[in-house]
Amino acid sequence: MNSSVLKKVLLFGLCGGLVLAVGILLGHFAIKKTASSQPKWVEEAFRDVDESFIETFISEVDAAQIEANLRELTKVPHMATSPGDEATVQYVLKRWKDSETGLDDAWREEYKVFLSFPDKTNPNKVTVVNPSNNILFTVREKEEAYYDDQRDPEVVQPYAAYSPAGHAKGKLVYANYGSMDDYKHLNNTMNLQGTIAIVKYGTVGRSTKALNAAQFGIAGILVYTDPLDINDGKMSDKTETYPHSWYLPPTGVERGAYNIKFGDLLTPYLAAKEDTYRISKDEITDTPPIPTQPIGFADAYALICELAGAEAPEKWQGGFNCTYNIGGPGFKSTSPFANSDVKLDIYNFEELRNSANVMGVIRGSVEPDRYILYGNHRDSWVHGAIDPSSGTAVMLEITRVLGKMVKEGKWRPRRSIIFGSWGAEEFGLIGSAEYTEEYFTKLSERAVAYINVDIAVFANATLRASASPAAQNVIFTATKQVKIPASDTVSVYDNWMKYYNRSSPTHGIIPNVRYLTGAGSDYAAFMHYLGITSMDISYTYDSSKTNARIYPAYHTAYDTFDYASKYIDPGFTGHQTVARTAGTVLLRLADSLLLPFKCSDYAESLELYLDESLKRYKTQLENKKISMAPLENAVKSFREAASRLEGVIQQSDFANETPFKIRRINDQLMLLDRAFLNPLAFPDKYGFRHVIWASRSSGVPTFPGLADAFEQADSTGLQDDWNQVHKHLSIVAQAINGAAQTLNDVI
Amino acid sequence: MNSSVLKKVLLFGLCGGLVLAVGILLGHFAIKKTASSQPKWVEEAFRDVDESFIETFISEVDAAQIEANLRELTKVPHMATSPGDEATVQYVLKRWKDSETGLDDAWREEYKVFLSFPDKTNPNKVTVVNPSNNILFTVREKEEAYYDDQRDPEVVQPYAAYSPAGHAKGKLVYANYGSMDDYKHLNNTMNLQGTIAIVKYGTVGRSTKALNAAQFGIAGILVYTDPLDINDGKMSDKTETYPHSWYLPPTGVERGAYNIKFGDLLTPYLAAKEDTYRISKDEITDTPPIPTQPIGFADAYALICELAGAEAPEKWQGGFNCTYNIGGPGFKSTSPFANSDVKLDIYNFEELRNSANVMGVIRGSVEPDRYILYGNHRDSWVHGAIDPSSGTAVMLEITRVLGKMVKEGKWRPRRSIIFGSWGAEEFGLIGSAEYTEEYFTKLSERAVAYINVDIAVFANATLRASASPAAQNVIFTATKQVKIPASDTVSVYDNWMKYYNRSSPTHGIIPNVRYLTGAGSDYAAFMHYLGITSMDISYTYDSSKTNARIYPAYHTAYDTFDYASKYIDPGFTGHQTVARTAGTVLLRLADSLLLPFKCSDYAESLELYLDESLKRYKTQLENKKISMAPLENAVKSFREAASRLEGVIQQSDFANETPFKIRRINDQLMLLDRAFLNPLAFPDKYGFRHVIWASRSSGVPTFPGLADAFEQADSTGLQDDWNQVHKHLSIVAQAINGAAQTLNDVI
Repeated sequence: MNSSVLKKVLLFGLCGGLVLAVGILLGHFAIKKTASSQPKWVEEAFRDVDESFIETFISEVDAAQIEANLRELTKVPHMATSPGDEATVQYVLKRWKDSETGLDDAWREEYKVFLSFPDKTNPNKVTVVNPSNNILFTVREKEEAYYDDQRDPEVVQPYAAYSPAGHAKGKLVYANYGSMDDYKHLNNTMNLQGTIAIVKYGTVGRSTKALNAAQFGIAGILVYTDPLDINDGKMSDKTETYPHSWYLPPTGVERGAYNIKFGDLLTPYLAAKEDTYRISKDEITDTPPIPTQPIGFADAYALICELAGAEAPEKWQGGFNCTYNIGGPGFKSTSPFANSDVKLDIYNFEELRNSANVMGVIRGSVEPDRYILYGNHRDSWVHGAIDPSSGTAVMLEITRVLGKMVKEGKWRPRRSIIFGSWGAEEFGLIGSAEYTEEYFTKLSERAVAYINVDIAVFANATLRASASPAAQNVIFTATKQVKIPASDTVSVYDNWMKYYNRSSPTHGIIPNVRYLTGAGSDYAAFMHYLGITSMDISYTYDSSKTNARIYPAYHTAYDTFDYASKYIDPGFTGHQTVARTAGTVLLRLADSLLLPFKCSDYAESLELYLDESLKRYKTQLENKKISMAPLENAVKSFREAASRLEGVIQQSDFANETPFKIRRINDQLMLLDRAFLNPLAFPDKYGFRHVIWASRSSGVPTFPGLADAFEQADSTGLQDDWNQVHKHLSIVAQAINGAAQTLNDVI
Repeated sequence: MNSSVLKKVLLFGLCGGLVLAVGILLGHFAIKKTASSQPKWVEEAFRDVDESFIETFISEVDAAQIEANLRELTKVPHMATSPGDEATVQYVLKRWKDSETGLDDAWREEYKVFLSFPDKTNPNKVTVVNPSNNILFTVREKEEAYYDDQRDPEVVQPYAAYSPAGHAKGKLVYANYGSMDDYKHLNNTMNLQGTIAIVKYGTVGRSTKALNAAQFGIAGILVYTDPLDINDGKMSDKTETYPHSWYLPPTGVERGAYNIKFGDLLTPYLAAKEDTYRISKDEITDTPPIPTQPIGFADAYALICELAGAEAPEKWQGGFNCTYNIGGPGFKSTSPFANSDVKLDIYNFEELRNSANVMGVIRGSVEPDRYILYGNHRDSWVHGAIDPSSGTAVMLEITRVLGKMVKEGKWRPRRSIIFGSWGAEEFGLIGSAEYTEEYFTKLSERAVAYINVDIAVFANATLRASASPAAQNVIFTATKQVKIPASDTVSVYDNWMKYYNRSSPTHGIIPNVRYLTGAGSDYAAFMHYLGITSMDISYTYDSSKTNARIYPAYHTAYDTFDYASKYIDPGFTGHQTVARTAGTVLLRLADSLLLPFKCSDYAESLELYLDESLKRYKTQLENKKISMAPLENAVKSFREAASRLEGVIQQSDFANETPFKIRRINDQLMLLDRAFLNPLAFPDKYGFRHVIWASRSSGVPTFPGLADAFEQADSTGLQDDWNQVHKHLSIVAQAINGAAQTLNDVI
């Protein structure tokens, strides 16, 4: 390391005091090393992030390479365990084993997992049947083909994975998004027993729509995407939708897994190996109890606009040019479908299949037992150009650039980097969940962070990031270093702040890093089950310009290379920017002498949660004689401990202290998210152990156990439910106190 | 460090290759340091255990000091939260804050815990009452006083803590040890409904005797210690028992907590602070459902020898000079008690009380964030000279010697040492359990080991040690260094091997380190809940000379300084030997550059468990189509990984490598026991998360979940129960594989 590098260190600091300390340290050794008889490992041990190397990395990330990757990855449909999936396994392996641009090592790891498929020889059918059993209308079995991509025989029929096979027939009702409130509203004025409900995607999870419906005796459900929710109202494939734009064609259908728990459903908490104990299928509780089928909005239009009954509430009205009635149940007497039933014939079957993760590593030089994990799933529903291949294309470009440096002997990270190309994510984050179950202890002990880039580019307007608060700092540092596609001077950070920002009590106006509270992609097992500081990074659209709840071709046969390159990210500069950003985050985590996590940012998040809960709950809890003081004190202790640790870091002269001290502080930072784990806090939620970021039903942005327990108690008024509020208060206060303890003086 | 020290290092190695490597390392630096410009922390960072310091420590441990400690600690009864307990809090604090022999810091930590006491103003009564309600016989309320100790008004009446208050009256039956089989035997020939059972201590846990009884409709139970089980048959306090010997006098009564779960019963998994959520008393499931009272064998004799009914089975007969009949139910028609009932009037009450742990620390110099924990409880039932004050007297002597060295600036450990004087152990290991709940994360991340010395001396014949297999090696090293009281040349190790040994496939004949499978003392929360490598060390008797199931004055008013100094350890040389041994273990753990844990010893234990389970279960499981191959493969992987790691250690030239490598290997060793934790494996057993050492009902010495599930399935034959066997096989195989992963190459 030369003095110009040293200057760059000082220029590009991640946080003032830290960099100062590190700079002093480097200076100390940079000066000493020519003269000394010090052990030869000293220079290596104190090696810090090399800013010029990061600049090189950023410049070498190539949009054309990403485009080529994507073209290769999307040649054929590659649903989990299909021949197309196997082709991507081979492709990723080939890339990671390449002698010039590969990693140190790469291999596949298989799990035998429980998947659900439609029957190719006996496709699912949805029909309108009159009392004489004549079929008046048949829902399309396949999406309209505009290009050869849609004609590939491997395009799987749209279906609801894990919907049971079975036949359901009944009068149709329209149930909005299928929430409990939606069904309750219908149930007020009609008997839902034996009806078929048509519901829209959105608001509640896929499976929840069916689980809720079954509680009212509904016999089957149809799910579609309303043009108002995805297409800004556009409906015509002649002029408006794909192939004319990014909008969803009328016959496009969102496929999806209809389960709630993530991971292999038959082997909770156990890696799904050949001889692993499996629960019986009957013990699965979170999949649809009734036949369920997704359909396109062209077909939904044909059904909904014929419905009889009262006009649905205004909020339930969608994008069709007709009034959405709730159903008689059934169709208008003036309709060609009068007196007819809707019939579902579902032939889905479930099967144990071998699904592969592909793993690759670059071994760390100084701390090989510290892991930076970077991953994305490989399986798609159809061609999956955006979901997930945009992320895989980005990952392969990052590994190409880094692999080349490693193979040429120009660089080796301080810590180990592990890349994961996960299998069967679309069926419930299965590959990543099984991986965390199998390597639970090793990952718990050694993982510094997990970076997830699934859909790399929803659109090419701005960065979007969700993360543990500990990681906000390194994301900011990276986004300040990387420039947006359209400009040589505007940073990703500045551009991002224009689209999504918030006012931070400590930092002022900053880009809004979202909380990782859900289980929308493979970060779930890392963040929620293992408590590894995780982040999910992508490029996305300007939300002022569209109301689409996600990119419109999501999970359809239109999510193709053509679609991606024409309408999502022409020129692949969005992909390039994500690769540069996520790669820079990765490098800073892998190479920084001191981990670039900030516990004071965590303190701020806890304070925001606390403020919200005090505002919402305190008075009522005082009336119930439940004190919130332990929670208030815990958050206060955490803030004090965080300030103390950051003070220690600022005041440290690492050059004159043992590497054990560096490791100690890094362990404090690395293990911070682990401190919030409680495996008994949410017994009914598979894998959710993080008491701050676990999934939450309540809309109140605060501690999830507390928020959900309060909502329940407030609605029932039962003493047992108030006891649960008290219990969750104690659980979260103890976790925060425990976390504060880990940041305090180590003895 | 000079060259004579170096020679000692080479002489007193803990394991050949390791010491060689360390020796090379020390040599390297010992030679270099005069010449170099190396950073000044290098010498400190590579500091290893100082053998001459250990010799000094051993020589300074003084029997007279231990005797003085014990005299002070046993002046008055010190049941948890009593004034006597507070006096011991103050005494321990005074010692640990002493400016010349104290620790770096000491403080008290309080928990508000749920305890159970008899009512001083309304003592529990056990009487024989005839049909006219005349009292024919009354069980003694207090033990016979031989000395002032027994006359102290603070001597608590014998009682069964957590027995409910209440009145029970019925015909007496004799139910042996109160196991399910015992009650079933009686139930074959009589109606137990409404009877009172008298049972012996032993075989099953205290509370279990009452929980079992209630299942048969028994209304109350009396518990006593049979002279055959504790006194080698001796009964006379005129000539045979204390004060003439160590044997239990006829009126001596074993007090005890009648619960199963450890820790505060109202706050499972939560530290019992003022505002912590508490379950209701009704939700406690493991305490006696019926009135329960322990009595002395003099009173038991008066009752049992009058019983009518069939002669009890031969195995049920005890030490009384009469035939033990099972009861009519009730007494013989020829007895003065004919037709009479036994009546229990129990006035126990429960209360939240503040119980204190006293904590003390010596800060580590190089790795302050690594903790060696050493602890014992402070509370007794009465004077508790042996249980627990013998252990506390030993702990205070260890802290005196080490504290003096620290205060004089002569020594500071490499790692931090934390001492714990736990409160309310007798009520269910409460102080230590609450401590682990409060500091769960910090301890999980940083604790290297926990050393428990509760009853330091059961008798002065030989060492006894129970431990995680990882710790066998350091216990052996220490016991080879320390000599037995009677000899300057015979090591504790050689003496121990004469009394308790086993044949090890790798080591040949070695002393038998017992498994830490139970929850008999404060190691439970550390070993089972946190997965911290733990050990329990004491001196004990020659089991060929007595059948006493424990030292006879256990939990009685006779466990006094007089008893301890006359009959357990005259001259306190047994105490001194335990202090030297446990102290040496502590020092080696605190000061060794590389932790003295041996993962190959763990492999051997797993192999023994595996062999046992294959022998017992394999054929039957194959018939059920449950493969044991994953377990076999897991144990094989573990052995290979352990060999690999020990190879790495042997081949390492630490002098030329970074301290990060030392820390990495130490982390692998420190966290090994953690790898076996599974918080969901035993949902009904509070705090038992270690899938190798959890408590086990089955007598088969193998993996506890597997053994118990197999026993259940084998007895019921139900498919659901065989599924549980399969599940536990998967759980334990996954844990062992996960552990093997942590020992393998770190990336």
